[in-house]
Amino acid sequence: MKEQLVPYDQLLAFTVDVFRRIGCPEKEADTAATALLSADLRGIDSHGVARLTGYLRLWEAKRANATPKMRIIHETPSTAVVDGDGGLGLVVAPYAMQIAIEKAKNVGTGWVSVQHSNHFGIAGYHALKAVEQDMIGIAMTNASALVAPTFSLERMLGTNPICVAVPAGEEPPFVADLATTTAANGKLEILQRKNEQAPAGWIQDSRGNSSTDPHELKTGGALLPLGGDREHGSHKGYALGAVVDIFSAVLSGANYGPWVPPFPAFMPMPVGMPGKGIGHFFGAMRIDAFRPAPEFKEHMDKWIRRFRSAKPVPGQEKVLIPGDPEREMEAERREKGIPLLQPVVEDLKGLAEKLALKFPC
Amino acid sequence: MKEQLVPYDQLLAFTVDVFRRIGCPEKEADTAATALLSADLRGIDSHGVARLTGYLRLWEAKRANATPKMRIIHETPSTAVVDGDGGLGLVVAPYAMQIAIEKAKNVGTGWVSVQHSNHFGIAGYHALKAVEQDMIGIAMTNASALVAPTFSLERMLGTNPICVAVPAGEEPPFVADLATTTAANGKLEILQRKNEQAPAGWIQDSRGNSSTDPHELKTGGALLPLGGDREHGSHKGYALGAVVDIFSAVLSGANYGPWVPPFPAFMPMPVGMPGKGIGHFFGAMRIDAFRPAPEFKEHMDKWIRRFRSAKPVPGQEKVLIPGDPEREMEAERREKGIPLLQPVVEDLKGLAEKLALKFPC
Repeated sequence: MKEQLVPYDQLLAFTVDVFRRIGCPEKEADTAATALLSADLRGIDSHGVARLTGYLRLWEAKRANATPKMRIIHETPSTAVVDGDGGLGLVVAPYAMQIAIEKAKNVGTGWVSVQHSNHFGIAGYHALKAVEQDMIGIAMTNASALVAPTFSLERMLGTNPICVAVPAGEEPPFVADLATTTAANGKLEILQRKNEQAPAGWIQDSRGNSSTDPHELKTGGALLPLGGDREHGSHKGYALGAVVDIFSAVLSGANYGPWVPPFPAFMPMPVGMPGKGIGHFFGAMRIDAFRPAPEFKEHMDKWIRRFRSAKPVPGQEKVLIPGDPEREMEAERREKGIPLLQPVVEDLKGLAEKLALKFPC
Repeated sequence: MKEQLVPYDQLLAFTVDVFRRIGCPEKEADTAATALLSADLRGIDSHGVARLTGYLRLWEAKRANATPKMRIIHETPSTAVVDGDGGLGLVVAPYAMQIAIEKAKNVGTGWVSVQHSNHFGIAGYHALKAVEQDMIGIAMTNASALVAPTFSLERMLGTNPICVAVPAGEEPPFVADLATTTAANGKLEILQRKNEQAPAGWIQDSRGNSSTDPHELKTGGALLPLGGDREHGSHKGYALGAVVDIFSAVLSGANYGPWVPPFPAFMPMPVGMPGKGIGHFFGAMRIDAFRPAPEFKEHMDKWIRRFRSAKPVPGQEKVLIPGDPEREMEAERREKGIPLLQPVVEDLKGLAEKLALKFPC
């Protein structure tokens, strides 16, 4: 499919303008645009600027608040619950992560559960904020139900990603950023566009049978938890997705399970919602709350180098460290620009016209 | 294979006696035996009393210390690093978990990384200690390398389990307790004994090819991370196992990656070990550090009931909550006794004779 390269800075400026147009304060528009485009930089195209019109539609449907009054509603020295006041998750998440970081500065670690938020982009962006402060960063979020737990015909969980980011010394940080499903929904969307089949173990159809049709979700099918089926450990992927749901929403007072509001603004809200909005969970652990940071980083470098130099299986070049592919992608795209598929370009041009802005390509 | 049922209390008393005989103080012998046998009660037979002679051999080889001087070597209000002084993990882990719980009482959460320890039994036992105090409990440990990361021919990680245990109200606790591999090593041992093949996706052979031979690990093969292969998300299982390794060992100063000491006392120690012993990581989060405990529990009950009542796929009775199978097993075995395979019985009888004890069957 045809792609167009757009320089990162121009795409960022455009995205900031869009958020300004819907009423975001200047600083928050910057924050939201930077968080959103970190997905494009890191190669997670499904979660980046391609979703910008989706965020706009949430705002139009009054499901996202451009001027939220975010606040702490409960706290202890190492914990807080944040009410996002229906704001964009792209703004609420950085606010909450900053609280986790401040608490870690004071008492060693900080843990913040968030209610009444919205989609926050990629978990990795938020977790990496802690790494800048010599801390381990943790970020997770729940999302609307697309995933069937082991033995379930019903979709009960979102793809519920977890990110753990760890600073190193001379080596770049270790960044594990993963949906708790076999494959993220974005990968399915790519197959749909290309009209290709999915591998077995990614999805089930509406009767609970294994399927390779990437369109199954439109007719009652579901994504499968990491592991795919019981024999291959899907109960583990289900358990991990459930932990994300509980930490993000049951701890905070957000919606959980099948009650999490959908991203597409045209879809009806779930009936009988037990909480407010979408939930997130953030953690920050100061390295020197455990051992001197230089000592830790020296061992992280050793860890990374030993794993990177592990003997690869024949036909593979090398063993990767979690975060390697995304970092390499970011370096390339900062230099060469962000490739946008033609339908995304058209979509953004339509948005530009509607808001009386100029799209940079 | 022939099994013998041994009442739990008798097996516990015997195990306490064994630990007393090697010099454990009375209270620590009780602690170690209770932790070890929690695996048998919960149906994780590979990690229970079947390993008792293995622990003894570690002690004989002077790789486990029966009278450790455990201590905190660094701390902040919400964190600590514990030096286990080479003690049995079955004793060191409860000591460290208690510190996490005390810190959570003071500042909302507590996080403890442990160096210079040994195998701690099952993660679930330790995490559930926090649940008794209206806290979420987290436990993980690294272990000697049996697992090949994605694209690796070399074994670099242990089966590195994670447990997250969450209290509920009228419902029993949610307990996610999982090795970060497709299948735990114990499941492979069962197939070896039965001389059956493993499903594809559990193991690779010494050349990195997928294999179904459960004996592969004896000839240079490896267990595979949760996901099995790259297409099915093995890089996620690898990343999770790596997080466990880093939290347990790089944070604490224990050994990591391929340098983690082996459980069998006859195996040589790795060359060039960068730390001390095996590492663990524990967390405790007070529920009411986030929201009032009764409110949280009400929502956990709702969460559990909604998931348990999800429509099952045809042919399956119901959707399970993580922890259900182990809890049901425990109820049954407390009543009827612990089934021991004949080779385990013979092994324990040999141990009894050697220590001048009477084995209860």
